[in-house]
Amino acid sequence: MASTSPVVAFIGLGTMGFPMAGHLSQQGYQVVVYNRTQAVADRWLQQYAGSSAATPAEAAAQAQVILSCVGNDQDLKQVYLGDNGIITGAKAGSILVDHTTASAGVATELAAAAQQAKLAFLDAPVSGGEAGAVNGCLTIMVGGEQSDLDKVEPILQCYGKAINLLGPVGYGQSCKMVNQLCIAGILQGLSEGISLAKAANLDIDKVIEVLQHGAAGSWQLNNRAKTMANNQFDFGFAIDWMRKDLAICFNEADKLGVALPLAKQVDEQYAKLQQRGYSRADTSVLIKQFDQQD
Amino acid sequence: MASTSPVVAFIGLGTMGFPMAGHLSQQGYQVVVYNRTQAVADRWLQQYAGSSAATPAEAAAQAQVILSCVGNDQDLKQVYLGDNGIITGAKAGSILVDHTTASAGVATELAAAAQQAKLAFLDAPVSGGEAGAVNGCLTIMVGGEQSDLDKVEPILQCYGKAINLLGPVGYGQSCKMVNQLCIAGILQGLSEGISLAKAANLDIDKVIEVLQHGAAGSWQLNNRAKTMANNQFDFGFAIDWMRKDLAICFNEADKLGVALPLAKQVDEQYAKLQQRGYSRADTSVLIKQFDQQD
Repeated sequence: MASTSPVVAFIGLGTMGFPMAGHLSQQGYQVVVYNRTQAVADRWLQQYAGSSAATPAEAAAQAQVILSCVGNDQDLKQVYLGDNGIITGAKAGSILVDHTTASAGVATELAAAAQQAKLAFLDAPVSGGEAGAVNGCLTIMVGGEQSDLDKVEPILQCYGKAINLLGPVGYGQSCKMVNQLCIAGILQGLSEGISLAKAANLDIDKVIEVLQHGAAGSWQLNNRAKTMANNQFDFGFAIDWMRKDLAICFNEADKLGVALPLAKQVDEQYAKLQQRGYSRADTSVLIKQFDQQD
Repeated sequence: MASTSPVVAFIGLGTMGFPMAGHLSQQGYQVVVYNRTQAVADRWLQQYAGSSAATPAEAAAQAQVILSCVGNDQDLKQVYLGDNGIITGAKAGSILVDHTTASAGVATELAAAAQQAKLAFLDAPVSGGEAGAVNGCLTIMVGGEQSDLDKVEPILQCYGKAINLLGPVGYGQSCKMVNQLCIAGILQGLSEGISLAKAANLDIDKVIEVLQHGAAGSWQLNNRAKTMANNQFDFGFAIDWMRKDLAICFNEADKLGVALPLAKQVDEQYAKLQQRGYSRADTSVLIKQFDQQD
């Protein structure tokens, strides 16, 4: 497959990008990786077939499709618009796909810069967490042109199980924000519900069994209620990342005139939990707001 | 089946009780109904085979199994412990099953009075709403003795799809409280998420499609996000009823030393929405907290 497939660049080998780029290599694509810390790229090259580049521009110059998954808006601007950035290096006609969870605003900004350089841009944040990236079953929320998505869809399918076009550039990010706001509410409700259940001596397994098919049912109930009750939080989606995403929500909501009172309170609780040492704990650690014992 | 089946009394023919008692009649049980407003009992008798009694005691005296579904703790005490109440009328050895959503405390109180009169008692609140009652597919959360539940389970199966024993008397009610607290959180998260989605011009159908299988997935997302976006609230579970249930949660939580900050805020929003005329609107009307236009 590699001989007829486009060369693919992958910028950012973090928790998500590392296994995502790995799937591309395993499925026969020629992959050029770039990571800010070269040691991580070296480790990737020990596990997978591919090559690495010294800058994003250099990686982009070798590829027809350039994928990225970095930290935040600022990292994105650096990696795309900086002196040795993707847009400087990419050949006209290349397609840029950004998997970072970032603001819809920065997506629009990058898309405009891309267009000037005769490049296409898709914002494509993912959900499914580290497990989804490792198992290649992420949900991908895309903003941009259908015709551009059509061209890269076989690539995204290497690690995406559900790939959905939400609308123009920025809409992928907006959908991801909705996702995070729903999760905040579900987790706060579960935190209160599970706290009551524990205080009332209910058997959590039975509670999950009873509630899961009804109006209180949720993915979080099925996958987190038990671990919340058992004080297990050393896995999953870290509250550091959630707070980054919520900050984006607050910015976007401010621009759009939308109030997010619950999300703001959840965020305040996460800030307190960070101070208690739970920065890398799963978002379900929210229940510890009611339990000052660490 | 009627000749060998126990005679069943059903006390309280409200939105839920009316169709529940109907299922019992349709499946061949001899049913004696009682309703505070006799006209409703008369209407029930026009639709179903059975008889009616003038008081709860009179209905209970004719039956081996006495089921109830009334409004709240006070109604329950009246119907069970009052001068013409169930416990006065019921024959020793009868089993009392209460489907009202009420406090775990009142369940314990009724169970103690029942035991003194040599009666068994099960608290058995339901979820699934009016549709669940009409279609006979309620979830029933039971507190009490397994041996008592075994005896009445065939009766409960006339309208219950999932019947679960959670523990001793009161545990059914506690589980229902957990259910309601989870729903409060999910709905507040959805209210904020859908508000952002609308402001960002996202297609709600696409958002639901994308989010439903991931970490933001919930029954409420699947069944209410679309109607919330479309301002449709004239169906479902009324906020009047939800506020009654939340009041029970707050009482129980106070006794148990559990904090419910989100549920309290949701309840405050529901109080404001009642004042705006939404008393009978579905709980998903919570999203209107962000929209002062009625």
